[in-house]
Amino acid sequence: MQAGNLRRGLPAQPVANETFERLIERSGLCIERIVSTGQSTPEGEWYDQERDEFVVLVAGAARLRIEGEAEDRALAECDWVFLPAHCRHRVTWTREDPPTVWLAIHC
Amino acid sequence: MQAGNLRRGLPAQPVANETFERLIERSGLCIERIVSTGQSTPEGEWYDQERDEFVVLVAGAARLRIEGEAEDRALAECDWVFLPAHCRHRVTWTREDPPTVWLAIHC
Repeated sequence: MQAGNLRRGLPAQPVANETFERLIERSGLCIERIVSTGQSTPEGEWYDQERDEFVVLVAGAARLRIEGEAEDRALAECDWVFLPAHCRHRVTWTREDPPTVWLAIHC
Repeated sequence: MQAGNLRRGLPAQPVANETFERLIERSGLCIERIVSTGQSTPEGEWYDQERDEFVVLVAGAARLRIEGEAEDRALAECDWVFLPAHCRHRVTWTREDPPTVWLAIHC
């Protein structure tokens, strides 16, 4: 039985890179935990994904920009967003300390 | 853009039945929020599902019994469990107040 806790094993202080931990991967479904400590999408870059993504902000805080929207969306704990495939988006800010934790589901 | 918050709109006090709110349903993926206020699986009954389920306890507390295991699993906030299709299980207890919130992903 695969099981765990989304807040376990977080870095005690900010680290250089975001960490991506794959929790489940099978038959088109991928569930991962992402831990950010202040990182954001590099200036001028966008995520443009082949698959739909459902993302929940489990802990921390972040700002998300969706292409075509006038302003960033401020995300707080337990906020979720569904990003259809090819919905271009970027993370413009993440809380650094304590870490920001995301649960991302790709299907 | 579909978006929301998993802790929003919770009942102010325990209610008679669990509530199931479908957040996303498309092409084999179903994501729902379940709110429990003390409910459990009726004695002698088991969930036996056709699809895999990934479940996260977003808020509250619960106990989960997996068929074949000697004891319940105590679930706290941010605990997750992956239940493969036909893994028989039952919820033996949920915290009543404030409510217990689950995020369930079926694929």
